[in-house]
Amino acid sequence: MKKNKANPNDNQDSSEIFNAAVLKKIQQARMAQTSAEELVVGILSANISALSRAITVIESSNKNHFAKANAIINSCLPHANQSVRIGITGVSGAGKSTFIEAFGKHLSSLGKKIAVLTIDPTSSISHGSILGDKTRMDELSKDPNTYIRPSASGETLGGVARKTRETIILCEAGGFDVIIIETVGVGQNEIAVHSMVDFFLLLQISGAGDELQGIKRGVIEIADAIVFNKSDGDNIDKTEQAKAELNRALHFFPPKKSGWIPSVSSCSAKNNQGIAQVEQMITDYIELTKSNTYFDKKRAEQNEFWLLETINDQLKQNFYGNTEIQNLLEKTKKAVQNNESSPFAAAQLLIETYFNSKD
Amino acid sequence: MKKNKANPNDNQDSSEIFNAAVLKKIQQARMAQTSAEELVVGILSANISALSRAITVIESSNKNHFAKANAIINSCLPHANQSVRIGITGVSGAGKSTFIEAFGKHLSSLGKKIAVLTIDPTSSISHGSILGDKTRMDELSKDPNTYIRPSASGETLGGVARKTRETIILCEAGGFDVIIIETVGVGQNEIAVHSMVDFFLLLQISGAGDELQGIKRGVIEIADAIVFNKSDGDNIDKTEQAKAELNRALHFFPPKKSGWIPSVSSCSAKNNQGIAQVEQMITDYIELTKSNTYFDKKRAEQNEFWLLETINDQLKQNFYGNTEIQNLLEKTKKAVQNNESSPFAAAQLLIETYFNSKD
Repeated sequence: MKKNKANPNDNQDSSEIFNAAVLKKIQQARMAQTSAEELVVGILSANISALSRAITVIESSNKNHFAKANAIINSCLPHANQSVRIGITGVSGAGKSTFIEAFGKHLSSLGKKIAVLTIDPTSSISHGSILGDKTRMDELSKDPNTYIRPSASGETLGGVARKTRETIILCEAGGFDVIIIETVGVGQNEIAVHSMVDFFLLLQISGAGDELQGIKRGVIEIADAIVFNKSDGDNIDKTEQAKAELNRALHFFPPKKSGWIPSVSSCSAKNNQGIAQVEQMITDYIELTKSNTYFDKKRAEQNEFWLLETINDQLKQNFYGNTEIQNLLEKTKKAVQNNESSPFAAAQLLIETYFNSKD
Repeated sequence: MKKNKANPNDNQDSSEIFNAAVLKKIQQARMAQTSAEELVVGILSANISALSRAITVIESSNKNHFAKANAIINSCLPHANQSVRIGITGVSGAGKSTFIEAFGKHLSSLGKKIAVLTIDPTSSISHGSILGDKTRMDELSKDPNTYIRPSASGETLGGVARKTRETIILCEAGGFDVIIIETVGVGQNEIAVHSMVDFFLLLQISGAGDELQGIKRGVIEIADAIVFNKSDGDNIDKTEQAKAELNRALHFFPPKKSGWIPSVSSCSAKNNQGIAQVEQMITDYIELTKSNTYFDKKRAEQNEFWLLETINDQLKQNFYGNTEIQNLLEKTKKAVQNNESSPFAAAQLLIETYFNSKD
């Protein structure tokens, strides 16, 4: 059987992408210069430049960096896990950036250090760039207690998840108290983010009345809190209605294993109203789940989840990357869809082909 | 790499299970006597005895029967797919058996032939027995238009799903117009059943007011209809309330790909009230989804789903059945849970071990 080929070294050098290529070379040269130990020492002494460079090593798809990345992570692990990890999602237009700005500044005013990471596998714009998310959170990015890092993007969700999870470890080792993972409301992102945070917050807006239907299947179920943003001016009444309606709907969901009853509240991030209450609510949640041991149990479960998920991904990648399987699969799918073959018998045939293949 | 060992030939012969063993030997002898062709000819001429014996071949975990089972299924496939497949689930106490009796007799009175299959991987009682489910549906089991078959049970859900799916094919080839798959409301059953039926019905009861919270995560979302049973006597008012409440909650779910708006209704199976309306509703659904092509599309998607699901299952079985992996896995899980190793790096190590193993 063939292992998946490593990504080719992506040192491109056409004039079109000249700046990006130059930047990459500088970064890679810098990475080569600094050893894993030096980066770890830097991270542990809260050196932001070392943290950023270490994250770049982790994000690199250059195979030569894998061992260095693993060395960094393993050295950081004993110093990690002391933060509160908060996932924030919401539809486009819910005001996520404004909310995170207000929320982050409030946390900073309480003396906390905040790292903001974003996940967006659908975008290929903001890769490693200092533009993108930072400009969306202009004020927060100037706050000395805050570190904003756009995600590695334009990759598979599995790849982004891995890099984000490992970036969390590095930020924690770097002394950040709160890690905020922001995700755009598309696809399977929310489920992935839910599996790497302690608290999952869904940001909503009230409006035409029908907009709640836009909430994706399953997202309400995994939310620990739903916060209606933009509750200001004419919108206050609508928000109160939407809150009442949502509270009724939440009755239809089974109680959470955490013992926590999902909270429905509102705020106006723009006017800085209701932000302190959100922070207090999350503090309450952390207190509850630490006292009933759910907090640590969930983190251990998440670690195991990512172990098994990664194994499963790799098994599938190897199977579907197999030459003989690739030649057979489309034909088999068609036969099965058209009821010419039982799906189970067809699967058996493919599996036998795979395990007997010379790949 | 080692393939999963076939289940050992389970010809046991201790006095404790003497009757079961004798019965099995008789069945196996009978199976050996009758060829796949003979069984298929019997099925296609609506011979119930041939159908039952063919299903027993499919349910057999004796490796020697696999080729015969595949031959039967492949010969039946061109004659299958003409029925309506209905999944019925509901909590214990919702009156599923009474409902299926009343519903089945109504279908029979319309001149339809009905097969009732049950899925219960948690039970190991009714395996291949003529007791069990049949006695629960005493009257229906005497109806000449009806065939009741308890599922192969006490197995993995994947195994039960496979056998049920293939039993559906055989029943359809045998001329049954409606296939009812009944499942008890536990675990992942509903999701599996949802992936093998055209219409998914959730049977509920109203009552103390809080009982809706007992509806499992996700089950409301996949239901095409929710029918409150036992709407009789003092219960009628409560049912109307529960219906209204549920209708409000359904607003929070996104529209279905089928274009169908999930229906909330009530009946009293015991008094035979509301049963014809349920039948009419399902007929409406079938008409809608056949006219908008969703019906065929969904069946093709289900076939592909089971193909990929089976492949994935087998890949995992092979991995977790590997001796070296078994020796490493628990230790690795612990290290990952205790933050001594990154889940991703640990997964990579296990995957490398697996692909380099001599199994």
